[in-house]
Formats: sequence, structure tokens, C-alpha cells
Amino acid sequence: MSPINGARLRTHIEELSVFGRPQGGTFADGVSRVAYSDADVAGRAYVRKLMEAAGLKVRVDAAGNIYGRRAGREDSLPPVLFGSHIDSVPNGGNFDGDLGSLAAIEVAQSLNESGVTTRRPLEVVVWQNEEGYAFNNGLAGSRAAAAHLDAGELDAVWNGMKKADAIRKIGGAPERIAEAARGKGSFVCYLELHIEQGGNLEKAGVDIGVVEGIVAIARSDVEIRGFANHAGTTPMPERQDALVAASQLVVAVNDIVRGEPGRQVGTVGQLNVSPNAPNIVPGEVKLVIELRDLDAKKLMMLGGKINARAKEIAAQTKTQIAMKPASYHEPALATPEVQASIEAACTTLGFKHMRLPSGAGHDAQSMARLGPMGMIFVPSVGGVSHSPKELTKWADCANGAQVLMLAVLDWASR
Amino acid sequence: MSPINGARLRTHIEELSVFGRPQGGTFADGVSRVAYSDADVAGRAYVRKLMEAAGLKVRVDAAGNIYGRRAGREDSLPPVLFGSHIDSVPNGGNFDGDLGSLAAIEVAQSLNESGVTTRRPLEVVVWQNEEGYAFNNGLAGSRAAAAHLDAGELDAVWNGMKKADAIRKIGGAPERIAEAARGKGSFVCYLELHIEQGGNLEKAGVDIGVVEGIVAIARSDVEIRGFANHAGTTPMPERQDALVAASQLVVAVNDIVRGEPGRQVGTVGQLNVSPNAPNIVPGEVKLVIELRDLDAKKLMMLGGKINARAKEIAAQTKTQIAMKPASYHEPALATPEVQASIEAACTTLGFKHMRLPSGAGHDAQSMARLGPMGMIFVPSVGGVSHSPKELTKWADCANGAQVLMLAVLDWASR
Repeated sequence: MSPINGARLRTHIEELSVFGRPQGGTFADGVSRVAYSDADVAGRAYVRKLMEAAGLKVRVDAAGNIYGRRAGREDSLPPVLFGSHIDSVPNGGNFDGDLGSLAAIEVAQSLNESGVTTRRPLEVVVWQNEEGYAFNNGLAGSRAAAAHLDAGELDAVWNGMKKADAIRKIGGAPERIAEAARGKGSFVCYLELHIEQGGNLEKAGVDIGVVEGIVAIARSDVEIRGFANHAGTTPMPERQDALVAASQLVVAVNDIVRGEPGRQVGTVGQLNVSPNAPNIVPGEVKLVIELRDLDAKKLMMLGGKINARAKEIAAQTKTQIAMKPASYHEPALATPEVQASIEAACTTLGFKHMRLPSGAGHDAQSMARLGPMGMIFVPSVGGVSHSPKELTKWADCANGAQVLMLAVLDWASR
Repeated sequence: MSPINGARLRTHIEELSVFGRPQGGTFADGVSRVAYSDADVAGRAYVRKLMEAAGLKVRVDAAGNIYGRRAGREDSLPPVLFGSHIDSVPNGGNFDGDLGSLAAIEVAQSLNESGVTTRRPLEVVVWQNEEGYAFNNGLAGSRAAAAHLDAGELDAVWNGMKKADAIRKIGGAPERIAEAARGKGSFVCYLELHIEQGGNLEKAGVDIGVVEGIVAIARSDVEIRGFANHAGTTPMPERQDALVAASQLVVAVNDIVRGEPGRQVGTVGQLNVSPNAPNIVPGEVKLVIELRDLDAKKLMMLGGKINARAKEIAAQTKTQIAMKPASYHEPALATPEVQASIEAACTTLGFKHMRLPSGAGHDAQSMARLGPMGMIFVPSVGGVSHSPKELTKWADCANGAQVLMLAVLDWASR
């Protein structure tokens, strides 16, 4: 067994954290390393140096993903692919993505130091723009690798920047982006270590989460039309109050989602009132309903119940409620053999483990389109993520990297 | 009986409507004549000319209110004071304020033409900044006349403009604003004709509304604190969703206010979610609750019920709900003798009439601090106001002016 160096992993996480750190802040102040920003470019350069120091042969593909290759004894075999991302949301934390990226490099470095040569080659990958804060479209690098970009995606403009130019900024070649696509069977297994971002592992007192899959995400745009009128002169029975209708719908979403057994979640996170003045009965409300579950059929069922309730609310409040699907991401199930391999690693290492779904999206779901996929979760303190308060204990970071190492070795030998 | 000239009144309303009309628009496109704007200044100049043409002796007081005086036989007696305002909300209508102001001038003009001299002098007034869109503080001119300005009000800044300078722009003298105050007993009666802005008169098929008083308005600022977290990774039972709590509160306000007999209204017109992203459980919501009724005690009772319910919601949703009083305007009751005088005028003229409260604020409530007050309402088509769709039929405009004339003559003879 090749052990990873937990202290070095910590040092690398701390060193990477300065790229995008708030001015005058400390590690605890988190990071804003939005994809394609100067901080992202600087962070990528740092990571690239680490890869080279770990003996990896580094290349940036046409999409801007960074790959580091380690030769195998049978070097023409499809490699084990593993990694994560280093871009963050604004005002995010230092573990989301960073841990999986730097642990992947740590695995390569440790193997280098112990002189192990695997049967299959290894490929470490750092995907670009996982978060999708830039261009409001995430998993950008891994979707390019899965040949799953949206039509016209390179022409998108965000903050005055064209996506093609953003990709050029990080060293990609957008005119050749099709070359970034990996074929099916181009890896034997994709592995990603990530923080849980929720509180299930911590609550259960478990060291390692074995991800069952990445949930489906269905978003609906809802537009509620009432009638804006003077709040002083419009009697209650005459009102068509779009916010009263919207509030009933928010409560309904919460009740319906909680009313079913299971781990599904439903959220109204965005809601805008118009004209939004204290003395005007709201005439219009726009909101977004988001539902997530590993089971696509359950999402359909929940959506149906919400729709039916929305019709009742519209009738009762004399408003019009228009719901239209805004986006749908299919669930991506982890491969049973990869889950078993991760569990075997946990058993070998004496770590408590449990299976759980990933409620957040990950680059692993792009890779699930191409071949076997598995994800390793480590506990998030308090279940906090996308926040400077995001925290995973250093021991848990090392545990996760250790499990990653064993799973990589397992698949590299197959 | 001196009849007013309904056709001329219409012409004046139409002529005034061009000041602040949307470019290329028509009368039906409404008006944006926000106080202190260039459109307001132009509208005021127009109104001043009408006053002069009606034989009134015009002056602008230190607060910027326009007064037009008509001598009486016993000219040292306190006058009958009557008028309204000509400022509007942005994207407002052509009747709110304009009707009462131009009808007051029409009364003076008609008396001039018929050679009537009243016992008491008459004073027509056009108050400045009734709407309060500018500086978020309405009844500005009438409050100055009632010596009821807020501390430091002249130093307020809005859109880069200091209030003192805004008053200078319309011909006032802010350094002498105390001189704008009228004493108690400085008029025998204040009368104001206004559109209802609600739909009660139209619905009841009644010509004239006799206002019982102007409702009390109590506003509370509500701040709901939950915990912002990832919408994918935060299980439903772990959430502290500020928007779910806010939605329950909006529904509760609506239910509680509708649950009591009477004409009270309760509105959540403004609500802002933070961080307001589809994939983040809302961590904070700020909203404003507004309650209105003629009976201040009923508002207290409703506020108490809402408070109690908010405590339950906070406990149930694991959020903190802080409610603090933001503003309170006392109810202003119309003087019974003035109501009777208006009713007598309606009877004389053969108009159907009914008593009703004013759900909206009016300059009349400032004058109620100083002496007898009454208001005359005419129907608003569809109950629409503060909108280009605001409409009162020309016949109803003339009816209201006619009632105003008789009530003015009644009080001028007392």
C-alpha cells in the first residue's frame, strides 16, 4: 500500500487558497476563484507546477482542461482518469474542487516517490469551470470532454467576455474544441474525490461516503400574474395578489417535497416581486422551482403534484400561474463495480463508510456518459458549502486521498 | 346655485396632462410628474396661470405650496380652504390630484363668472409633493402647512438632490419654511375632491363618496434570518429556509386580515430574497407588512395576531423573524359637520352618495390637524389608480366639482 502524504496535501490546499483570497484575508476567509478570472489563471499555473513536480506529463486540451499523464506498464491501455476542478463560486470555500484536484496530484506524487509503476497509465485531470458561475453554465470542461456542449455555447457572452475568448485566456483553443472530446472507452474508470457539501456523513459519524450517483435536477420557471393596484384602496376580496399566490406555492413546494419518503429536495431559491413597493399589491412574481433526486420518475411525480396544486392556487387567488421547464439534468448513476472498489478500499483502510447520493452536480456526471464512474465523499463540517465557512478536517482530507489512491491502484491493475 | 363648467374642467385636465406625458404618448398613456421634476415645475406654472385667469391672487409659500385667494365680503374671517396636488407617481394617471386641484380652480372661475361674492374669503391650494415618490416622504407641502415636518427633513437627499434645493427649485424658501405653517383655526373648513382610487363607488353604482376619514397606516419592517446553503446537498429536515418562513408569513398576513369583519387591508408589497439564486436555500428575506384601517385599535389587534403567528412560524422553520415598526400614520377622521354638508350638496344635486373610508393617504389628513376637514370622492373606473389606466368618467369629474362648489359655498356662508 502506497500511503499519501496528508501534511503535503494540506500544504498544497493552503498554498492554492491564496489565489482568489479576499484582500487582507486568511484561509478562513475563503476564496473567489471564478473560472476564467485572473485568480483562476494563477491557480491553474500553480496546479500545473505541482503536476510537473509529481512527474506528470502535462497538457492543456482544446477546452482548457489540464491533464497530467503518468505512464503505465501497458501504456496503450485506457488509463484510470481521476481529478476534479479548482474554480470556485464567488465567496466560496477552499475544499470544493480543490481537495479532489490536489489529492489526485498527491496520489501521483506518492506513487512517484514510492517508485510504483501501475499496469495501466494514469491521467490526472483538472476540469475548467465546473461551477458555472461564469456564463451560468457549469461542468464546462467535462462537458467538452464528453462532447456534450450546448449549441452556440462558445458564443455566449458573460460580463462582456465571449466564452471562446475565456477559453483562450486559460490556454484552450476554442476553434478546435471538438478535439477535447474523449471517446467512450477512453478510460477504464473515472474517479473523483470531493467534499460532501451536505451534513449526512458528519451526522452519521462516518469517514467516507460512497456516492450512489448524482441526482437529476429539474428547474421550472414560474411566472405568476395578478394585478398591481393601490394597497390602500383595493379591498381584500378584489385583490389579485401575485405574492400571496407565490407564497402559497412556495409553501406547497416545501410541503409536497417533505411529504414523500426519501432524500429528494425541492427549493424555491429565487423569487422576484414586481413592482415591489410596500404600498402596491404585487402584480407579478417570478420564481424558480428546483427539484433534485436520484430517481427521475420521482421528480416527475413531484412536479405533477406541484403543478396540480399551482392550478388550485391560481383559481383561488384569481391569478395566472405559468410554469415552464427551464432545464433538466439527467441523473448519473455511479457504476456498481466502482462503488464496490471504493468500499473495498474503505474496508482495507478501516474507514467507516456509507452510500449516499450526491445532491450537487459534479464533473463525474459528464464522465458517466463515457465509462465507469465513481465518487468518494468526505465529511463537510456542519454541511456548509459554497461559503468561506466550508470546512473539511485535515484528517478527513487525507482519508479521502488515501481511499482515492487505493481505488486508483485497483482500477489501474484491472 | 353656481354651476361649474364641466367641459372647461375636462380641457384643463387634458392640458395639464401634457406636462410629464411619455414622449410620443397620448392622454391614455398617463403621466410621470414626480414632485420637483421639470415636468412638475412646468405643470405648476400652468396651474398658476389658470389660477390667475380665475381671478385668484396667487402666492407660493415658503414650502412651495401654491395658494390662490379670492376675497370675501368679510375678508378678515378664516377662509374656506380647498384644493389638492398635481404631482404624480412615475407612470401614474391623469386624475389623482389633478382633478381636485383643477376642480378647485374651476369653482373659483365659475364664481368669478357668475359674479358671486362669498361671505368668507376662499383659498385654493395646490400642495407640493403629495405622493412622496421623491424623498420617499409624502404630503410634504401639507405637512409643512401643519408644522408637522420630520426632524432634518430638509437635509434629506434623493437622486443626488437635497430637499431644500428641491423646494427652491419650485419657488419655495426652505430657510423660512416655518412661515409655511398655518395655525389652528386658520381656515373654517378644508375640502378636497379626489378620485376614489378603489372600486367601491363603481361597484355600488354610486356617484359621490363622502369620506369618513383617512385610514391609519402601520408599516413593519420584517427581517427573516435562516441559513443559506447548497440547495442540492442540504436535506429538507436540516434547512432553515428564510423564504419558506416568509411565505408562511405572507399567507398568514392575508388570512388574518381577511379573517376579521370590516374594510381593513393588509399587504406585503415588498419582499427581497438573499442570495436569490435558484440553487441556494434562501438565507435571508426582508419584507414590509402594511396594515390600514380607520380604527387604530383594530390595527393594533391585527398586528398582535400577526406577531404571534410570526413567532410560531419562526419556531417551526428554525428561522429568526424580527419585526420592527417602520412608520405609523394616525387615522384622520373627517369632521361630521363637513360630511353632512357634502351629503346635503349631493341631495340638492340629486347624486347618489355613500360614506366610505379613504384607504389612501391625502393632504387632507395634514389639514385635519388644524381644523374641520372633509373629502369628496368620485368613482375610479375598475378601481385602478397609480397607473396610466387610472380613469374617472368626465361626467363624474364634473359631478364632483359641482359637489365641491356647493360645499364651498355652504362653508363660506357660515
